[in-house]
Amino acid sequence: MATQMTTAQLDDLCINSIRFLAIDAVQKAKSGHPGAPMGAAPMAHVLWDRFLKHNPADPAWPNRDRFVLSAGHASMLLYSLLHLTGYDLSIDDIKNFRQWGSGTPGHPELGVPGVEMTTGPLGQGFAHGVGMAIAERFLAEHYNRPGHEIIDHYTYAIVSDGDLEEGVASEAASLAGTLKLGKLIYLYDDNGISIEGDTDIAFMENVGDRFKAYGWHVVGPVDGHDTGAVDAAIREAQAVTDLPTLIVCHTIIGFGSPNKANTGGVHGEPLGEDEVALTRANLGWAYAPFDVPKEASSHTRMALGRGAAAQEAWVAQLVEYGRAFPAEAAQLDADLSGALPAGWADGLEGLFSADEKPVATRDASNRVMNYIAERVHGFTGGSADLGPSNKTTLTKQTAGDFASGVDHNMHFGVREHAMGSIAGGMAVHGGVIPYTATFMVFSDYMRPPMRLAALMGLRVIYVFTHDSVGVGEDGPTHQPIEHLMSLRTVPNLNVIRPADGTETAQAWKSAIERTDGPTALVFTRQGLPIIDQAEYGAASGVHRGAYVLWQSSPTPEVILMGTGSEVPIALEAGKALAAEGTNVRVVSMPSLDLFDAQPQAYRDAILPPNVSARVSIEAGVTLGWDRYIGLGGTAIGIDHFGASAPFGTIYKEFGLTAERVAEEARKLLSRVS
Amino acid sequence: MATQMTTAQLDDLCINSIRFLAIDAVQKAKSGHPGAPMGAAPMAHVLWDRFLKHNPADPAWPNRDRFVLSAGHASMLLYSLLHLTGYDLSIDDIKNFRQWGSGTPGHPELGVPGVEMTTGPLGQGFAHGVGMAIAERFLAEHYNRPGHEIIDHYTYAIVSDGDLEEGVASEAASLAGTLKLGKLIYLYDDNGISIEGDTDIAFMENVGDRFKAYGWHVVGPVDGHDTGAVDAAIREAQAVTDLPTLIVCHTIIGFGSPNKANTGGVHGEPLGEDEVALTRANLGWAYAPFDVPKEASSHTRMALGRGAAAQEAWVAQLVEYGRAFPAEAAQLDADLSGALPAGWADGLEGLFSADEKPVATRDASNRVMNYIAERVHGFTGGSADLGPSNKTTLTKQTAGDFASGVDHNMHFGVREHAMGSIAGGMAVHGGVIPYTATFMVFSDYMRPPMRLAALMGLRVIYVFTHDSVGVGEDGPTHQPIEHLMSLRTVPNLNVIRPADGTETAQAWKSAIERTDGPTALVFTRQGLPIIDQAEYGAASGVHRGAYVLWQSSPTPEVILMGTGSEVPIALEAGKALAAEGTNVRVVSMPSLDLFDAQPQAYRDAILPPNVSARVSIEAGVTLGWDRYIGLGGTAIGIDHFGASAPFGTIYKEFGLTAERVAEEARKLLSRVS
Repeated sequence: MATQMTTAQLDDLCINSIRFLAIDAVQKAKSGHPGAPMGAAPMAHVLWDRFLKHNPADPAWPNRDRFVLSAGHASMLLYSLLHLTGYDLSIDDIKNFRQWGSGTPGHPELGVPGVEMTTGPLGQGFAHGVGMAIAERFLAEHYNRPGHEIIDHYTYAIVSDGDLEEGVASEAASLAGTLKLGKLIYLYDDNGISIEGDTDIAFMENVGDRFKAYGWHVVGPVDGHDTGAVDAAIREAQAVTDLPTLIVCHTIIGFGSPNKANTGGVHGEPLGEDEVALTRANLGWAYAPFDVPKEASSHTRMALGRGAAAQEAWVAQLVEYGRAFPAEAAQLDADLSGALPAGWADGLEGLFSADEKPVATRDASNRVMNYIAERVHGFTGGSADLGPSNKTTLTKQTAGDFASGVDHNMHFGVREHAMGSIAGGMAVHGGVIPYTATFMVFSDYMRPPMRLAALMGLRVIYVFTHDSVGVGEDGPTHQPIEHLMSLRTVPNLNVIRPADGTETAQAWKSAIERTDGPTALVFTRQGLPIIDQAEYGAASGVHRGAYVLWQSSPTPEVILMGTGSEVPIALEAGKALAAEGTNVRVVSMPSLDLFDAQPQAYRDAILPPNVSARVSIEAGVTLGWDRYIGLGGTAIGIDHFGASAPFGTIYKEFGLTAERVAEEARKLLSRVS
Repeated sequence: MATQMTTAQLDDLCINSIRFLAIDAVQKAKSGHPGAPMGAAPMAHVLWDRFLKHNPADPAWPNRDRFVLSAGHASMLLYSLLHLTGYDLSIDDIKNFRQWGSGTPGHPELGVPGVEMTTGPLGQGFAHGVGMAIAERFLAEHYNRPGHEIIDHYTYAIVSDGDLEEGVASEAASLAGTLKLGKLIYLYDDNGISIEGDTDIAFMENVGDRFKAYGWHVVGPVDGHDTGAVDAAIREAQAVTDLPTLIVCHTIIGFGSPNKANTGGVHGEPLGEDEVALTRANLGWAYAPFDVPKEASSHTRMALGRGAAAQEAWVAQLVEYGRAFPAEAAQLDADLSGALPAGWADGLEGLFSADEKPVATRDASNRVMNYIAERVHGFTGGSADLGPSNKTTLTKQTAGDFASGVDHNMHFGVREHAMGSIAGGMAVHGGVIPYTATFMVFSDYMRPPMRLAALMGLRVIYVFTHDSVGVGEDGPTHQPIEHLMSLRTVPNLNVIRPADGTETAQAWKSAIERTDGPTALVFTRQGLPIIDQAEYGAASGVHRGAYVLWQSSPTPEVILMGTGSEVPIALEAGKALAAEGTNVRVVSMPSLDLFDAQPQAYRDAILPPNVSARVSIEAGVTLGWDRYIGLGGTAIGIDHFGASAPFGTIYKEFGLTAERVAEEARKLLSRVS
């Protein structure tokens, strides 16, 4: 190499460094996706080299630009960039790509220094990025003051054909256009190749026109291998401050591979030793595997100096801001830390009284949510156009007006999937505690982002109302049956279904205080009596998942257990059995997830192993209840779809009654004795 | 009324008949959605009165136009049309709207005469309609001959803002544009109102431009209350034969209600007695509730005569076709009946040999699929751009070339959700047996249509490959953990996870022969040995969900059970325990759904109640296994997310080994004894 390289030569060197780290890591792992990194390396290099505001020495700097690799299969593109710009990701990590315990998993994962979110399932990065930009807008509108643009960063992403085919990206794009998220800049790696062949076989639309229809600014198509063109396109995007921008970049997948470039074959398999050698020759790359030319690395690592300077300037700016606006600065600090104000939950216990009329837990939730909104500033979210039914509208605001849509009451539209993803993006951005809301049955539309939030350990709260056949007349399309149990199967997702207002308050407390994963809160449409805390087991038992609500004897012969709206039914049955002289225990089990996490001793104390006569009741599938009732118990539930009728009729017709619970208990007791 | 009404007057009378049936039924039920029927009545009347080819006396006529009410909450619009045009839906059915056991459930349900599909979850009707149009194209291209357009009908839908906000509609629209489905004509009921307020709060995009970008023909906006304008728009749509058409109709939700029209309040609640009276006065409607003016009903029931004549003409045409093309006519008849050729499965047993090398069940599935494709003409489908990985490509074609994309190997693009919905639409149309394919972990993207197929009882087959942490290096984003158990919770969805090639063949047989619901077939990425049918339990046991694969004694002390790739592990553990002198039984459990449906005697024969030492192994969550192992058993599984590494490493690190199974069995036995 010449000692004085031109910019173009230096760009090429850096770009090929990215490419060959990807090629060689995939080859060594005998697994991975070399094609996209080879094609997208130029646009990624331009973005990271000339635009991205970040500090590799402090990946947590709050005002950094966010970069999302939505096409997560191109993980080696991102790992290469992270390694080259000085993040804590060594060449040994690169060499151990996709191996057990390595820092470079198959798809990017939150936790790898510099990775903003876990990607891989297509469309998710696109939609989560919209959530990041919304969180930025939220914080900027709350905290920035004239001359004090304390929150001010872009959200960039590289997105692929597959991302844009996914409906979740369409939903998020439409909302981003409505909200005019001007700091959202996405580069579309338009390589025209999918796994099954040319994208034309399934994707003939005009992507640019589609995004213009959403209200985006669209740049290009530009040649994604022309660094100058990409540079100009990003500048243009930054200049358009009131619209999100999509930059369409024509690229060649597997660029540089003589025999595999521009084919589906280069997407998801190593090039093979021979083709790696041919690609080296073709691109004039004389370096050994994992050998990065010094000229390249010394250039890319300048990101460290730039980042340190940028962060220092911001810290100085923050100090000025703190002098001018001490209260706001303190609140911003609290929001960014995610900490809750001391004593925030002290008044929760007083929100409900056993004297009041039955309250649907969705209404109880509204009371609790407004209580929280007064105390927890970063608490924000909305519904997928069901706010009035989900009862998620916040009336007690702690702050003033914000731009259309991005305030404490967000309007996601009928877009459950994007809602879930956007909430995940908001949470992973930080500074806010997001919630979403829809009918329980539509949780099916948003499972992918719930899974990702659980995988990333994000504090997102999903409100699901209309939680059973108690929905009534809307019928089977709107009546959840399998959803409760099916959500419980998701690792690290806590599902809580409270039985009344007092349990609802504790459920929200559990969700808000949880910092290592998401919580699904499941509420009724129909009214439920407030359980008297003076007479029955304290609702604080919610935090242990299950607790003794009432018993006629400390040594029960039979245990009745239930969740949510079926707890009063179990209680009524318990009273009836007790009146017959049976020793009975009634257990409220708002969260099987939380209960399963308790020590064996606690679980045995609630469900003593020597009591085999056990009846569970829940208006949903019985699969899963066997864990708590055993082979000798009876699970009352619904193992078929619902029906359209007033909810009282349905409960009776489906056998969800106290009489039935008592009868099943008697059967078990007669069998035992 | 004058005895000689003008066309406009008659239209008005019919339209208001629709409106007031909806208004009064919702009012009587004290539940429902009057707003959309009131606004969309004119466009629906024009479509049904002047265009829709159907025979109310025979809702199953194969060549009828399909009409989908995607906005299913407007169910009373559809029920009114069905009643007025002479379907078997009486005025008493209308009066019993939303009541237990009535013929008019809250949302339209397949099974109500004239209802083409169950709708309610937004976006689904839109996407299923695309599937119906694809099935029509498939049959037309296979069977029509010059002068014999034996399959030739439109698919119409009324779609709402909410439908168009849902990502599944975006996905389906993009594919419909790519496939140039010229017989797809959708009317967009653009009323500008959502539940949370004006649609502008979340939906500012230009819908018409978006659909043009997808490659649709877009008409309008037209005044949806102007019958002449709607008439002209549908004629224009029919004239454009090579593109799907969206007709944008501006309407007023709750039209005619003086105080509630054009508000969110009219969407999902009865008008109230007072407002009903005011609306009657405002629209000059002197008729009592449920009283349809004779001039209206005698006009709308002319659909019966038109329909009978149209169907008779088609039958005559079919007779001509049968004379000219007897073989094709017989095949068409078979396709439409959904019946399978006699003896079609006779050769399945011979597809695999215990002598061959281990075969991944996804590869085994490919072998079986090509076997089926040679024998079952209507068998068609495809993958969400993972065909080469899912191994779903059919190589043995029984027919020639078809138009781009709509052939035996469909290309859905990276659109799992629309893929599921389109397959449902194809199945409910009839004439085809559709399958879909993607990675198991992405089943999350397509749960809503799977639920609908289960609810409707449709024969759809979902292929899910890469079914566990056996995926290996792609890591946790691509490794299903909760999906197996979570799919099992869906009522009427059979989930089958075969253990080898022989079970794979039986699993496919079960899925193809099932006519009352969908089946999810779950296959491995990694190779599995073919189990010797001469030595072990016959794979036909798949049809009963579980069977004794092998045992060292007919009176076992311990039962080991597993599914799919974990069966060989259980078998190895069983052999090891037997070598130690333990009486052991190994049970293969490919389908918990099928097993649960067996008589108690069979279940007890496989899992004898007196054997409490039971170990299950499955590479997924353990929740649910308690049903089979009881409180005294041990479930080996994975109750956390996966990891990125070669799959052998993951199995070992996660304890999915024969050693572990044997060890847990020994622990149980020592506890029992």
